[in-house]
Amino acid sequence: MKVVKVPHPKYPKSEVVERKAIGHPDSLADGIAEAISRRLSQEYLKKYGAIHHHNVDKVGIVAGRSQPEWGGGSIVKPIRVILAGRAHYSVPVETLAIKAAREYIREVLPLARDEHFIIEPAIGEGASELVGAVHSVLANDTSVGVGFAPFTEAEEITLRIADFLTGKEFQRQFPEAGTDIKVMTHRDDGQLDITVALAFVDAHLHNMNEYRNSKAAMLDLIREKFDLQKAHLEINTLDRYDSKDSVYLTVIGTSAEQGDDGAVGRGNRINGLITPARPMSLEAACGKNPLSHVGKLYNVLAQKIAERIHGETGKAAEVLIQSRIGKPIDDPPLVLVRTDAHDIDAIVSEEVERLPEITKEIVAGKVRLF
Amino acid sequence: MKVVKVPHPKYPKSEVVERKAIGHPDSLADGIAEAISRRLSQEYLKKYGAIHHHNVDKVGIVAGRSQPEWGGGSIVKPIRVILAGRAHYSVPVETLAIKAAREYIREVLPLARDEHFIIEPAIGEGASELVGAVHSVLANDTSVGVGFAPFTEAEEITLRIADFLTGKEFQRQFPEAGTDIKVMTHRDDGQLDITVALAFVDAHLHNMNEYRNSKAAMLDLIREKFDLQKAHLEINTLDRYDSKDSVYLTVIGTSAEQGDDGAVGRGNRINGLITPARPMSLEAACGKNPLSHVGKLYNVLAQKIAERIHGETGKAAEVLIQSRIGKPIDDPPLVLVRTDAHDIDAIVSEEVERLPEITKEIVAGKVRLF
Amino acid sequence: MKVVKVPHPKYPKSEVVERKAIGHPDSLADGIAEAISRRLSQEYLKKYGAIHHHNVDKVGIVAGRSQPEWGGGSIVKPIRVILAGRAHYSVPVETLAIKAAREYIREVLPLARDEHFIIEPAIGEGASELVGAVHSVLANDTSVGVGFAPFTEAEEITLRIADFLTGKEFQRQFPEAGTDIKVMTHRDDGQLDITVALAFVDAHLHNMNEYRNSKAAMLDLIREKFDLQKAHLEINTLDRYDSKDSVYLTVIGTSAEQGDDGAVGRGNRINGLITPARPMSLEAACGKNPLSHVGKLYNVLAQKIAERIHGETGKAAEVLIQSRIGKPIDDPPLVLVRTDAHDIDAIVSEEVERLPEITKEIVAGKVRLF
Amino acid sequence: MKVVKVPHPKYPKSEVVERKAIGHPDSLADGIAEAISRRLSQEYLKKYGAIHHHNVDKVGIVAGRSQPEWGGGSIVKPIRVILAGRAHYSVPVETLAIKAAREYIREVLPLARDEHFIIEPAIGEGASELVGAVHSVLANDTSVGVGFAPFTEAEEITLRIADFLTGKEFQRQFPEAGTDIKVMTHRDDGQLDITVALAFVDAHLHNMNEYRNSKAAMLDLIREKFDLQKAHLEINTLDRYDSKDSVYLTVIGTSAEQGDDGAVGRGNRINGLITPARPMSLEAACGKNPLSHVGKLYNVLAQKIAERIHGETGKAAEVLIQSRIGKPIDDPPLVLVRTDAHDIDAIVSEEVERLPEITKEIVAGKVRLF
Repeated sequence: MKVVKVPHPKYPKSEVVERKAIGHPDSLADGIAEAISRRLSQEYLKKYGAIHHHNVDKVGIVAGRSQPEWGGGSIVKPIRVILAGRAHYSVPVETLAIKAAREYIREVLPLARDEHFIIEPAIGEGASELVGAVHSVLANDTSVGVGFAPFTEAEEITLRIADFLTGKEFQRQFPEAGTDIKVMTHRDDGQLDITVALAFVDAHLHNMNEYRNSKAAMLDLIREKFDLQKAHLEINTLDRYDSKDSVYLTVIGTSAEQGDDGAVGRGNRINGLITPARPMSLEAACGKNPLSHVGKLYNVLAQKIAERIHGETGKAAEVLIQSRIGKPIDDPPLVLVRTDAHDIDAIVSEEVERLPEITKEIVAGKVRLF
Repeated sequence: MKVVKVPHPKYPKSEVVERKAIGHPDSLADGIAEAISRRLSQEYLKKYGAIHHHNVDKVGIVAGRSQPEWGGGSIVKPIRVILAGRAHYSVPVETLAIKAAREYIREVLPLARDEHFIIEPAIGEGASELVGAVHSVLANDTSVGVGFAPFTEAEEITLRIADFLTGKEFQRQFPEAGTDIKVMTHRDDGQLDITVALAFVDAHLHNMNEYRNSKAAMLDLIREKFDLQKAHLEINTLDRYDSKDSVYLTVIGTSAEQGDDGAVGRGNRINGLITPARPMSLEAACGKNPLSHVGKLYNVLAQKIAERIHGETGKAAEVLIQSRIGKPIDDPPLVLVRTDAHDIDAIVSEEVERLPEITKEIVAGKVRLF
Repeated sequence: MKVVKVPHPKYPKSEVVERKAIGHPDSLADGIAEAISRRLSQEYLKKYGAIHHHNVDKVGIVAGRSQPEWGGGSIVKPIRVILAGRAHYSVPVETLAIKAAREYIREVLPLARDEHFIIEPAIGEGASELVGAVHSVLANDTSVGVGFAPFTEAEEITLRIADFLTGKEFQRQFPEAGTDIKVMTHRDDGQLDITVALAFVDAHLHNMNEYRNSKAAMLDLIREKFDLQKAHLEINTLDRYDSKDSVYLTVIGTSAEQGDDGAVGRGNRINGLITPARPMSLEAACGKNPLSHVGKLYNVLAQKIAERIHGETGKAAEVLIQSRIGKPIDDPPLVLVRTDAHDIDAIVSEEVERLPEITKEIVAGKVRLF
Repeated sequence: MKVVKVPHPKYPKSEVVERKAIGHPDSLADGIAEAISRRLSQEYLKKYGAIHHHNVDKVGIVAGRSQPEWGGGSIVKPIRVILAGRAHYSVPVETLAIKAAREYIREVLPLARDEHFIIEPAIGEGASELVGAVHSVLANDTSVGVGFAPFTEAEEITLRIADFLTGKEFQRQFPEAGTDIKVMTHRDDGQLDITVALAFVDAHLHNMNEYRNSKAAMLDLIREKFDLQKAHLEINTLDRYDSKDSVYLTVIGTSAEQGDDGAVGRGNRINGLITPARPMSLEAACGKNPLSHVGKLYNVLAQKIAERIHGETGKAAEVLIQSRIGKPIDDPPLVLVRTDAHDIDAIVSEEVERLPEITKEIVAGKVRLF
């Protein structure tokens, strides 16, 4: 393992940050893919004591067609969820995948009924070469994992608002709030400009007044809760209020029901955010096997290293870890750390050694991945 | 339009860069999506004088199953290409999409026969609200476009090698080279470390010796051509040479034939590269309509601004352009420029005004998008 | 309406009769198609007071892959159910179709879990011309409906055995009996030769002995119950008993789980039987709209006429009713009756007038259709 | 082998007969399935000298969407062709299947372009038990094959008209005639009533006058050619002539392009006809393997026996052949012959011995199967 330490870049005080919350079609794809990977991993472990090869990171959401109505409309064409990928068929892969996907959808979109989603597995048998690679825990690909800490103010507020809006408390208070929510923040020095797109649910709204009142109440709550009196804050910029078709109304709370497709890896990075001006990996973490897939493990590892460096030294850190296919995963060819902290080598080594722990945490669902 | 200029970040002299060349499953998805968007745009223009709404940026490649053999094997299960998205059905959308996809595949994978690919269109009618947005050329989404110039040495060499290996000359000299090629470069100060994954084509190789000789000849040629005597350079790191199954052998020159799925937006950014430590947009440009989709236009625009700033001032530039859904695309709420150049406002304004030109160039296929 | 009466044919005393019971892949397709038609009809009636056009008679079952084990195996690849057809989208067609299909499957295959079946609706909007035809209750096609009465001895015993084996009592006594059962009877004069193919369920059998004992007990029961001491009777002719793979063992009780596809209209006629030497319609009744589709209505009508003629006169009757597209359904161009009974015209007229009643009975699920 | 001879039934002089010609969606499905079976058989024979197990008799046609226009319209949504079934993967099954399907479609629908049809293979690996059965040429199922000779006058004229209308000469004279043609004949004593449904092709017709003139010319030609001066003869009964949407106009000459689905085994029997009042098998012959699948072989065999009996004795014959799964195919448990001819045993025996020849003829495409 080669560790290279260089100074942290100097960033300007202007940034743009985004989060696609759990009900957004891209995040839905991420979450389904990861739910399947977790389920398969658990089954392999239960039956064989080891995680067999799988890689189900190509979940696609093909939008349906819906007719929202004040008081409750209907889903006319269901949403298709295409599960592409590979897995070892030592367990009943596709039925497990369907089950995991259904359970996840129920959790994230409580208004969705089973007939609103068609789950279409197309999960093949993995290339034997790579299957071999898994057993000896060699890197399955040549790629790069990325992490950084700490969050900037805009990053922090974006993530917190999105998590709050999809959280239990808010969803109980505003049953008309769907979980397909997008928060985009622009910060220019101290000035915050926050735009929220939030899918309203028709069953809980009976006319335009209720819609407008609900939106106003939400804005008040967010402002107060996050102390945003001076920020510019908007929900559903495009609303025109002249008919139900000119506001953001849905039946089950996601734009996937009408026109918006989704795909794994097209939304948030593993820290939960999209940060165009910060280092980012393009690897989709969700759905990849948590034992040997560096596109997943090295992103989590890089994030953990960055957080520990920041936690222990108070210095910001950006970490990039390169893999090479066929090399042992606990011996990455390059760990590039951008920080002004000293003495980071021990932290890097210790975290790399913790990879088997990280695998366990991922399988247990304890690591944020999107 | 608000233009904010801040200093350019200082980056360390260590970087990791990657390119997935045209035959890679992710790039294949990108290219097909864009070929369809171009075809639809041309048809709309021909028939109506205007580009109608479409967004076919969710193309998924579901891998097939192949049996490579020295001298030529076969494709047992074809590769599925699922075309999700929306479009205005004022032209025969799905038959045009199939045709565009087939022609593109023939161009990029000359060995593929029609029966090796199943094209499955699932292109719906776009949400009416957004269709309206298109006609008045308002931003169709809230997102961020990103560009930068100039390339670093590692970025430059990565792109040039990948383009060379999929170029006519090399492909003529080495008919056994498929177009699914991945180039990953790590630079640490002046030291370059380049890894190439290249799918060999079985029909042109009759035994392991021919495979090894071909690989050696390719290495020599690349080294010489790009003056890489001092660099570390490898092709197909995982090769073990003990049987045809232990080397990277394919029937039509892409890993999509056996186990590797692909999706739009999971590979290169519009500059042709994956650069984890540089600003990147997560928006997939390919397949999006080139008239109003800021996820496409603003990335191209940002790149053009960055290139012009660098071209005219000699100073590096990183450009981030924010959009807000429903706002006119020629009046972006924020253009953030990181550069040490002065007097960039005129450049920004002129390029923003050139947006209609950019649309035309994209439709004509003259802009690199992946 | 033209009624032609001719003498009944003289048939030889040798016949071959078959029934595919409810869990057979072809019957499964029939039952699902009809469940969907009933559900759509009920919704149209509830919402509009009239049955709108639909025709969902092209349901295809694409077999899955299973691994039966003594004590209980697993479904590895789910069974795909493709719902082709047309319907008027004045109700949420596809979500209703999925729901109806799921409920039907649960009823017929109690061991099947939702993740064992993928329901893929592909239900288009009907051709407008035919939709028009529906509103005025004109025949939607040019075809022929067929019925006959009474059953021969072989026909009678075939139907009764199959219904018994899939009935509640037998299924409670033999939980190891699946519902995919095929009964084929050959009668040569008085000699009956009955072959039963019955899918055993692995979860209720722990070894080969239990399988053999169960089969023997079933044979005894059938013989006794149907007084078949002199008949030749066999279950699962192909069994070799040397391993679990050499007997007819399944996970959920249908051959659709492993290799056997199914399709609407490929199995029983509306009297529940396949009778190659008797008049038969090739029209698939299941899934067709019960208001105007002569391929459905005229088969039921012909059967009712035949049964009434036989009931009232004691004479056998075969009835063929021709339709012509665009003509009122209550004025068929030809009713051909083969019988030695006299005075059948009143019966024919009365039954034709009862067509609206027949539609209601079909929607209520009171008419056997496969 | 048990041969039972009984007298021929006496049929009344009234009958209804139908043929769905080659471009009808059901026949299209039949033809595609059989083209695939032939191609696979040829490949197996070429590579292994023996036909391996396959059964691709569940082809489904999911209708597309078209916009016919005088002078030439367009296909908006392509027609889906779903290829379900099983086959031994000792040859590249799915790519061969796609190729065979494409070539067949081009032959039968010369106006169809590749992008008008999506071919979706879903061909699994056959159940091992049945694969075993194939190698020793044992019956793969328990079923019944049926044949009869000679044709009645109505049967004869129906087949001849349909073949004429799809034949080269007629298609050259009337390029506006599609190949989706349905001929239904009712004969009552000597009186013939013939209804033809014929899909006209829009590219060759520029207005309603041309349509009407073409139809009139066709009627004249058919009347003259088949000497039908006294018969009632109609083409496209439903035509109203008030707009292009009120006549039977298509883009590529088949109703599959707009709303009409199709499936194997839902149309003609192997003699080319649907004859509700005659003995018929419900087995779909097309797509089944021609070596051991009794659902295919015994229908052809029964037809050949019937034809020879009629040819050699001048007496009508109806033949039903029963199979039992696992028994040698050249030793059927029952051959039931309804004829007034004597001495048929030798004919039966000789034809049964010719089964290997029949297999060859089927593979060579020399036997009508639909």
